[in-house]
Amino acid sequence: MRGTIMDYPLTLPTILEHAGRLHGDQEIVSRHPDKSIHRYTFADFYRRSRQLAEALLQAGLKPGDRVGTLCWNHAEHLEMYFGVPCAGGVLHTLNLRLHADELAYIVNHADDRFLIVDDDLLPILEGFKEKVSFERIFVVRHGNDPLPEGMEDYEDLLTAAEGTFVYPEIEETAACGMCYTSGTTGRPKGVAYSHRGVVLHTLSAAVPDVFGLSMRDCILPIVPMFHANAWGMPTTAVMTGSKIVFTGPHMDHESVLELLESENVTLTGGVPTVWLPVVDALKKEPERWKLKKGMKFVIGGSAAPEAMIRDFDNMGYQVIHAWGMTEMTPIGTTGVPKPAFDSMSKDEQFATLAKQGIPLPFVEIRIMGDDGLAPWDGNTMGELQVRGPWIADSYYNPDDPIFSWTEDGWFRTGDVVTVDKEGYVKITDRTKDLIKSGGEWISSVDVENALMGHPQIKEAAVIAMPHEKWVERPLACVVLEENAALSPDDVREFLSQKFAKWWLPDAVEFIDEVPRTSTGKFQKLALRERFSAYRSN
Amino acid sequence: MRGTIMDYPLTLPTILEHAGRLHGDQEIVSRHPDKSIHRYTFADFYRRSRQLAEALLQAGLKPGDRVGTLCWNHAEHLEMYFGVPCAGGVLHTLNLRLHADELAYIVNHADDRFLIVDDDLLPILEGFKEKVSFERIFVVRHGNDPLPEGMEDYEDLLTAAEGTFVYPEIEETAACGMCYTSGTTGRPKGVAYSHRGVVLHTLSAAVPDVFGLSMRDCILPIVPMFHANAWGMPTTAVMTGSKIVFTGPHMDHESVLELLESENVTLTGGVPTVWLPVVDALKKEPERWKLKKGMKFVIGGSAAPEAMIRDFDNMGYQVIHAWGMTEMTPIGTTGVPKPAFDSMSKDEQFATLAKQGIPLPFVEIRIMGDDGLAPWDGNTMGELQVRGPWIADSYYNPDDPIFSWTEDGWFRTGDVVTVDKEGYVKITDRTKDLIKSGGEWISSVDVENALMGHPQIKEAAVIAMPHEKWVERPLACVVLEENAALSPDDVREFLSQKFAKWWLPDAVEFIDEVPRTSTGKFQKLALRERFSAYRSN
Repeated sequence: MRGTIMDYPLTLPTILEHAGRLHGDQEIVSRHPDKSIHRYTFADFYRRSRQLAEALLQAGLKPGDRVGTLCWNHAEHLEMYFGVPCAGGVLHTLNLRLHADELAYIVNHADDRFLIVDDDLLPILEGFKEKVSFERIFVVRHGNDPLPEGMEDYEDLLTAAEGTFVYPEIEETAACGMCYTSGTTGRPKGVAYSHRGVVLHTLSAAVPDVFGLSMRDCILPIVPMFHANAWGMPTTAVMTGSKIVFTGPHMDHESVLELLESENVTLTGGVPTVWLPVVDALKKEPERWKLKKGMKFVIGGSAAPEAMIRDFDNMGYQVIHAWGMTEMTPIGTTGVPKPAFDSMSKDEQFATLAKQGIPLPFVEIRIMGDDGLAPWDGNTMGELQVRGPWIADSYYNPDDPIFSWTEDGWFRTGDVVTVDKEGYVKITDRTKDLIKSGGEWISSVDVENALMGHPQIKEAAVIAMPHEKWVERPLACVVLEENAALSPDDVREFLSQKFAKWWLPDAVEFIDEVPRTSTGKFQKLALRERFSAYRSN
Repeated sequence: MRGTIMDYPLTLPTILEHAGRLHGDQEIVSRHPDKSIHRYTFADFYRRSRQLAEALLQAGLKPGDRVGTLCWNHAEHLEMYFGVPCAGGVLHTLNLRLHADELAYIVNHADDRFLIVDDDLLPILEGFKEKVSFERIFVVRHGNDPLPEGMEDYEDLLTAAEGTFVYPEIEETAACGMCYTSGTTGRPKGVAYSHRGVVLHTLSAAVPDVFGLSMRDCILPIVPMFHANAWGMPTTAVMTGSKIVFTGPHMDHESVLELLESENVTLTGGVPTVWLPVVDALKKEPERWKLKKGMKFVIGGSAAPEAMIRDFDNMGYQVIHAWGMTEMTPIGTTGVPKPAFDSMSKDEQFATLAKQGIPLPFVEIRIMGDDGLAPWDGNTMGELQVRGPWIADSYYNPDDPIFSWTEDGWFRTGDVVTVDKEGYVKITDRTKDLIKSGGEWISSVDVENALMGHPQIKEAAVIAMPHEKWVERPLACVVLEENAALSPDDVREFLSQKFAKWWLPDAVEFIDEVPRTSTGKFQKLALRERFSAYRSN
């Protein structure tokens, strides 16, 4: 028996219309490259997004055509977030931190037809332009430099719209966006987000125990809009009618803190490396910036060190530890305190907040260990596998063989986790970074986090090195703070307070910095290559 | 181009599993008919809901089979809310306040196969049992009376489950529930809710600007679970892991206030007639009950008088005025204060809160006036029409011809409204109650609300009477407070401070009480019949 309910598709036009009709007065604030502040309202955003959609259709955009963007976080990028999919196109955000060859590969693989690019990012485009063939290139001009030969002004594109836009019919399973994930092995792999998936992710992200956004909130996503939908923050804020603040290219801690204060931001989000200098600055000059009491810092992308969570808590701010993946639209879990939290000791609370959190409504999780499904006991490790209505079921035309889905349809995250009885996921490692010593697993992440809690240690990465007897043993690569003086034995001594003897690294190497991927994550592959000759016994 | 996202159905099993796995410790509290308090956890609820599902399948339940319930609000009813649809069945909640003939019609029309009934409601079943044919009847026994001949114990049904339950495959468009709406004209009409519609309603209801439920909340729905899914409150609380408190049959104000206090309720919901004695009691004995500061009172079903909203506000509580319909799963709008609210005078704020609110994400609204689409100017009246993924597109096998949908697929609510530029809907009348005097509309609801603001007036209903020259003119039917002494001219004089002369009722009749429908709404049809001989000139 079928329900007598309307067959109403879940698509982005409904969110854009809702925002335009109901939240027209709300503000969107962007910082330009010259550091000036640009303000307009949801009404402006609504009008211009529809203009963009109309103009793209005039330009010949066909359903499913990819439109690449090479842009910072700003209002125009938000217009593209809606204008492109509302015209039936697919927004393909390009990660401006990738190597030119990777960008060329991605653009060609996705078959991007148009490109919209920031004027201050034209040098990046220059780097791979000869290897790709965009039909038309539109430039968002913040400065006064003349347009390069053959490129057009984004504003002229919008002006071409006649205000007669009517949304095309869009199926909810149609793609609305694309993002490529550049793993450490193989070619970059593309995920095509669906309208339905983004809509459901948006609804789920808005609930109180995830981001909890209302008309009274103001968000500032530092996480780039070219990175996994900026964790869904911009789209969610558009639906909930929250004020939105964009940093443009200025993501240094002074610029960010200034905006957090002046715009009364209530929720911001970024990777741990963005927050390190922010925490330092707030500790050094506690009176300088008056941030909103109880302000929420969403931390994701990689694990938030417990010390950072404690620092934010001490200052009266709330940390929401989040975990997700490009393949998951992207949020999977958030670390909100459950009622059980209240009866924990302060140390247990912070240990819990340092975990990656509990799954969002409609994200199913399971742990697959060596012997099948693992229990939620907080100890048993296994690969985290997920399922849900905004999780990828494949990559877009992959060039390499893919082993990321199980036979029964779950996505294999590649993260090794434990889940405690409350449902908090703790990532102990990437499957490929896990150290297997004498048949037992050692979590490189746990050891790294402990190391980074040492006042004289700035950063640390722990990798496996081959061992004749134990198969693998840990090597710690440590970056010291300035003027610090630690010996390898000091480091091992420090760790021995927390870990069993067999978890302690056999060797400690002091290095200048931990190599990073384009999204700021530790690139252990580079370290493994550097220390490949290492042997311990 | 299709998104590379999992084809994952939106069904109730996912919510039940999420709740059972992640919120097992949360409490569900029910008051029994003997006034004792019953407590158990989400873990118990989860286990028993699955037992119910398994037992129903053992009993031969086929996909789409209807299971009727004749129950108060309590934990077992919540088990049915999930156990029935998770077995692939359709939960058909019967309104115990309906006439026996209506109940018989509804049960036969829906073709209910099984019934689950409270022991204290068996007398109601007695009233129509001979006119229907349930295959099996299960009784929820709170007392010790023996089971009537041919009936079975609900607990025995559950015990039959062997714990081997596996969810059947359910399409998201399949029906999960049914509710009949008994209009003032024609036979009752059935709505079949879909899994997808309920899931989306649940997600949307959870966001901060609707109910805003988190794991830290505790809800007490006074609105009956047999009435339009209890406004989605129980299902939403299950998804968000909020504590749930049920009144059982005890909805008197003392019992309700006691539970609101003792269980630390943060959000409750019911019709205005439920709240009138609560407000009176709180005003009379302000020290007696210590309710949570900022507690939310959701008021819907019919318009909340502005005086009530002011009273709650004065006491430090928040009113969320909500509007919905059985045909809408049911919530359509909620009256949360937009940022524009802050720059209003106190009077404007209360006038805004007395409106029915702004549409939920994914509810589209429009006003259809005499001359087509009406503007959102706060003045132009027209019929409210709605569209969205949880709104009915038809009735279930209707016996009468139905004119409730427009040719372009919008649901005609039958409510006459204005919408202001902020998007707040104000219901000025039912299309059939509107008074058309000399070609201009008079809102009976506006005049009623003004009358009910008079300290000596308890209730008022304004109806149209035929008029030779003006076609229709208003007649006010007024219920006075005890010991009040008002003349018809006093009443007209009072109204003249607020309304144009032509809006004033030609006549004022003092009556003992306003007749009500089974759901507590004014039954103007009865008044129109009673005063049908009236003529003014």
